Amino acid sequence: MAERENTGQDAPVARPRLEIEYCTRCRWLPRASWMAQELLTTFEADLGEVALVPGTGGVFEVRLDGEVIWSRSSDAAFTDAADLKRLVRDRIAPGRALGHSDRTA
Amino acid sequence: MAERENTGQDAPVARPRLEIEYCTRCRWLPRASWMAQELLTTFEADLGEVALVPGTGGVFEVRLDGEVIWSRSSDAAFTDAADLKRLVRDRIAPGRALGHSDRTA
Repeated sequence: MAERENTGQDAPVARPRLEIEYCTRCRWLPRASWMAQELLTTFEADLGEVALVPGTGGVFEVRLDGEVIWSRSSDAAFTDAADLKRLVRDRIAPGRALGHSDRTA
Repeated sequence: MAERENTGQDAPVARPRLEIEYCTRCRWLPRASWMAQELLTTFEADLGEVALVPGTGGVFEVRLDGEVIWSRSSDAAFTDAADLKRLVRDRIAPGRALGHSDRTA
């Protein structure tokens, strides 16, 4: 994460880093990039960065400060953006309402 | 960058990290995300990661392993993807041809 001075606008503590590792051979860059944009739109003041990490072997894994919060290898189907936002929200902004992402289908 | 074992497919040396810091108030996430996708498409085996870093104050800055290779504060106009690919290529894959990105307009 970029070091920055505390301007009084940013929180003085380091904001969490989220990373999305995706399989390049599966052509999942657009999917990973879409997830990154969804998360950065919702959590723009909460996340320090979202890193897109090229990988291989069918990997699609989302990690928050190193903790795996979603992985294709352990979850049967792809998650959608609303699911992922809830997983991130529960960890970094637990009081936050997510609008229609909070409603169950 | 994610730690990973050397499987024989990946280069044993750490691949460089590129980061794009963008101003959220200027709504430059789509621009930053587009640049990230362009660079990851061209350099998918060369870059360790591309990080999208939310910032403020009109920032749009591209850093490669901490070195600023393009910044809106020192360059008058926005760069395009071909310019940025040449800047990255010259540093991490100097022998690489970039097809039509190498041609001057």
